[in-house]
Amino acid sequence: MSRRDVEFVLYDWLGVETLTERARYADHTRETFDAVLDLCEEIAEERFAPHNKINDQQEPSIADGRVVTPHDIKKALDTVAGACLLGAGMDAGAGGLQLPQVVQTACFLWFQAANISTWAYAMLTIAGANLLLAHGTDHQVATYARPMIEGRYHGTMCLSEPQAGSSLTDLTCRAEPREDGTFRIYGNKMWISGGDHELGENIVHLVLARIPGGPPGVKGISLFLVPKYLVQPDGVLGERNDVVLAGLNHKMGYRGTTNTLLNFGEGTYRPGGEPGAVGHLVGAPHQGLAAMFHMMNEARIGVGAGATALGYTGYLKALAYARTRVQGRPAGAKDPAAPPVALIEHADVRRMLLAQKSYVEGALGLVLYCGRLLDEERSAADDAERTRARLLLQVLTPIAKSWPAQWCLRANDLAIQIHGGYGYSREYDVEQHYRDNRLNAIHEGTHGIQAIDLLGRKVVMDDWAGLVALEALVRGTVERASAAEGEARDLAAALDRSLARLVEVTRTIHTADVPAGVRLANASLYLEAAGHVVVAWIWLEQFLATSDRDDDLRKGKRQACRYFYRYELPSTGPQLDLLARLDTTTLETDGTCL
Amino acid sequence: MSRRDVEFVLYDWLGVETLTERARYADHTRETFDAVLDLCEEIAEERFAPHNKINDQQEPSIADGRVVTPHDIKKALDTVAGACLLGAGMDAGAGGLQLPQVVQTACFLWFQAANISTWAYAMLTIAGANLLLAHGTDHQVATYARPMIEGRYHGTMCLSEPQAGSSLTDLTCRAEPREDGTFRIYGNKMWISGGDHELGENIVHLVLARIPGGPPGVKGISLFLVPKYLVQPDGVLGERNDVVLAGLNHKMGYRGTTNTLLNFGEGTYRPGGEPGAVGHLVGAPHQGLAAMFHMMNEARIGVGAGATALGYTGYLKALAYARTRVQGRPAGAKDPAAPPVALIEHADVRRMLLAQKSYVEGALGLVLYCGRLLDEERSAADDAERTRARLLLQVLTPIAKSWPAQWCLRANDLAIQIHGGYGYSREYDVEQHYRDNRLNAIHEGTHGIQAIDLLGRKVVMDDWAGLVALEALVRGTVERASAAEGEARDLAAALDRSLARLVEVTRTIHTADVPAGVRLANASLYLEAAGHVVVAWIWLEQFLATSDRDDDLRKGKRQACRYFYRYELPSTGPQLDLLARLDTTTLETDGTCL
Repeated sequence: MSRRDVEFVLYDWLGVETLTERARYADHTRETFDAVLDLCEEIAEERFAPHNKINDQQEPSIADGRVVTPHDIKKALDTVAGACLLGAGMDAGAGGLQLPQVVQTACFLWFQAANISTWAYAMLTIAGANLLLAHGTDHQVATYARPMIEGRYHGTMCLSEPQAGSSLTDLTCRAEPREDGTFRIYGNKMWISGGDHELGENIVHLVLARIPGGPPGVKGISLFLVPKYLVQPDGVLGERNDVVLAGLNHKMGYRGTTNTLLNFGEGTYRPGGEPGAVGHLVGAPHQGLAAMFHMMNEARIGVGAGATALGYTGYLKALAYARTRVQGRPAGAKDPAAPPVALIEHADVRRMLLAQKSYVEGALGLVLYCGRLLDEERSAADDAERTRARLLLQVLTPIAKSWPAQWCLRANDLAIQIHGGYGYSREYDVEQHYRDNRLNAIHEGTHGIQAIDLLGRKVVMDDWAGLVALEALVRGTVERASAAEGEARDLAAALDRSLARLVEVTRTIHTADVPAGVRLANASLYLEAAGHVVVAWIWLEQFLATSDRDDDLRKGKRQACRYFYRYELPSTGPQLDLLARLDTTTLETDGTCL
Repeated sequence: MSRRDVEFVLYDWLGVETLTERARYADHTRETFDAVLDLCEEIAEERFAPHNKINDQQEPSIADGRVVTPHDIKKALDTVAGACLLGAGMDAGAGGLQLPQVVQTACFLWFQAANISTWAYAMLTIAGANLLLAHGTDHQVATYARPMIEGRYHGTMCLSEPQAGSSLTDLTCRAEPREDGTFRIYGNKMWISGGDHELGENIVHLVLARIPGGPPGVKGISLFLVPKYLVQPDGVLGERNDVVLAGLNHKMGYRGTTNTLLNFGEGTYRPGGEPGAVGHLVGAPHQGLAAMFHMMNEARIGVGAGATALGYTGYLKALAYARTRVQGRPAGAKDPAAPPVALIEHADVRRMLLAQKSYVEGALGLVLYCGRLLDEERSAADDAERTRARLLLQVLTPIAKSWPAQWCLRANDLAIQIHGGYGYSREYDVEQHYRDNRLNAIHEGTHGIQAIDLLGRKVVMDDWAGLVALEALVRGTVERASAAEGEARDLAAALDRSLARLVEVTRTIHTADVPAGVRLANASLYLEAAGHVVVAWIWLEQFLATSDRDDDLRKGKRQACRYFYRYELPSTGPQLDLLARLDTTTLETDGTCL
């Protein structure tokens, strides 16, 4: 990661220092923010980066029924926990540092860039603890969330089942009530990251399951806390619960994170003398999905941040390589005796670097802006401000998840290309970043799921309030830029046209007489076009935020902004045209003729 | 691969049967073509596919100085050689089957789809033998090419050096003449596929090196044949030559093919009592590059075919998965009790399948059309026809190399996406296809190198003859389609507009006063836009070729064609606009600000 760029986004663009004027963050100053950034950078470099390749080479395995992981994973996680960083964004009362979300998101980028698969254990634990803080009972917080924040227990999110990946409607895990108020869980969960390991004392599974007799579909799903080891009232670990590792999945990348099939309640263990995994209801019955989505929305922005960090670190490596590797001569140079030049001197290499810069710095702006919105939602003095932040966050979450997953993967692809054959070899880092990053368009809701969420739900929610808020946000920047110097005015005009077209197309798609199938048929293209418009907005914001500077950062930001407006934003034209005419090619395709 | 589709392209579109009327192919009939296709399909299925995953898992290693590869590789290659398939396209007089190139290309797709990294050894051997048949002496053909065609010797192409990947100008390997007419080679070669192994009796390295005193740059490069073991006049293997394996590279994919750093002439062996690798000049001194490019152009179309085969097999696997995997409900279906549907019922999944189909079948048409041009170049009765074929082949080669590498990789990406989490796991096949295919944009000339070749050389060669031939080709189809039914006329109009714009932009870029640096600054975008226009032409051709049919193939082809014209071809609009305005963003970028 580039500390200079992160500081630019935090302080110059997003004015994060002003948050310290609010009661929630009054104990903080820019100095404390910077100190945590320093700390994370240092731990990432010393404890995370050195075993990134080891994680890739020494995939977790099972020996004597236990999961074996490289030793360095536990050391890294313990260091993070020891520095109280798992609670970086949590309330002081819960044992946290009560940092703004935007600062926490920035801090964690270093861990994600250095070693995403080790960091995933921490991320899952933080998300689980946050969910319990929001929806758990005092007892659940004290018994489970506290040791998670301390790094003694780890967390998982158990949604998918072997027969139901993206389709939560079809979950079949069963939760039978017992007289003592507990439940017994039965069923299988698939793709569970961190589902088993020996990295801490206990694992707290947060599991979606159905209480018999509840409504069908997603309205009958409840959320349960299912520990690997039962916890006695005094906090001492008790019996093994009936949750069993059924197998490890072997992935293309992200290999350090165990990914598991878990069996619940098959009777391997008999807690209290009875088969069935003991579970504790979290929140109200049948309201599990809403509570899980508390965690899921946070996880989705976390996925976007992870994709950003992987793209960013690949970009920096490609840049360093292009500056030092000497190869070929400029176009038109005929003299073979002239000395060769650095790769960066070639226009096509610069194009690939500019593309990467525009993707990874655009994505960085997007995920940090989302963090800033979370802080507004939590701490803005004004009710209307909080509502606006909530709306924007809801609209932007599918974009903040998908856009970095798509384009920072593309950045990793270009980093390989700049390295040539070296980039394709495992002796260099960039191919691993590419493989690791490929997961991000799949987990926590695929690209297609995010697309339906954005077009089918978010833009129309609350009588179009989400879209209206987004439009106002972008238009505000357009107006500010239009009042500025010449070039900003041109960029503003281009953004304004794209925005107007996006809004117009959105309204067309949601005209009353368009059938639901047609409406969502090209949702993925809509997600991509909307993403590019939003990132063009971020680039104009960053362009404006460099106004007072006169340095390399200003030059680089402005050039990447120009690249984005010239090479990238125009691609939304054909996409929006296709959406505007409600193209039905896919619907008319007879599946048998494929 | 789809046999039905390959037969459609060969016989219905490209009229390959008519080749049997020509003297060169007079011994063949459609039956013999089909018999070889049958044979390749069978060998690919029985000998290649079963160890594709094994190649990925058991990467070649070095033990006691020798390269260890999975046993199945040798068995597969020996079966191919035993069936005389290495010489499938070679003259009968050289021991070949004298099949048309287009049929050979089609046949080999099955091996590439089944196991690209085992097939690579055969492909290198075939390309090396072909080079010797074209440029070698009778003695070289008898001593080296013959055993290669019989599968006893293997071949390599030694171009790149550690300090010179894409830049052949900077090759430093040295070839010192000896009095007996041989040379001694000194230097290092990097990224040499098949550079060492124990799969045959000998390895024939074709090596670019400089004879001291020759001109600088590419005009001073000569080509040498450097066997691993010297061959005595009676054909018996003699001493070990001074070519030594310095290391294996470990790749993201394509793992079954050894990729090596070779040291020539470091004195590990002393053939004839003297250090230095014994080499035999092939062709004239300082004319090595032209001879090597004989092999290279063939290899480039082979790369395109390999990319196509990997994309195609991934598409077929995604299609099968989408038909059987049940998940979710159609958009707008509200009843959670309704049974879930197959993935293929979802519009977004069908979009991803149509995209894959349009890429892989478009690429198939492109590489087989290039094979057909090779046959025209070799066997057309008319001089003008042969010239036209040669010109078209020269223009299309960079596209046939790059377009499949880019878009069939994208097809593999979509195949993963359709599989969801399963697609990201190594228990399924599609992630390996994706990793394997990623190499194809790098080896045998990167994407950027192909772009410069197309825009800087091919379109302007012979006073624009290449571009004129391409334009006439596409316009001929436009005219034919315009005379046909309504829909074909609309497609023709769209293609005609894109073609006209491409030609206009090409002329603008090559206006006399445009500096060389500006001219080639966006060559990669030009390559991509030209590729899409060419593939749109192929789709219109295939659309027309289905006119007499009334079956699923016709429906599928037409739908994929529509998809390509609606979703893909419009993306060339913004690319060509950027090219037309001679955008200099990359040139104006100060490298220090990145």
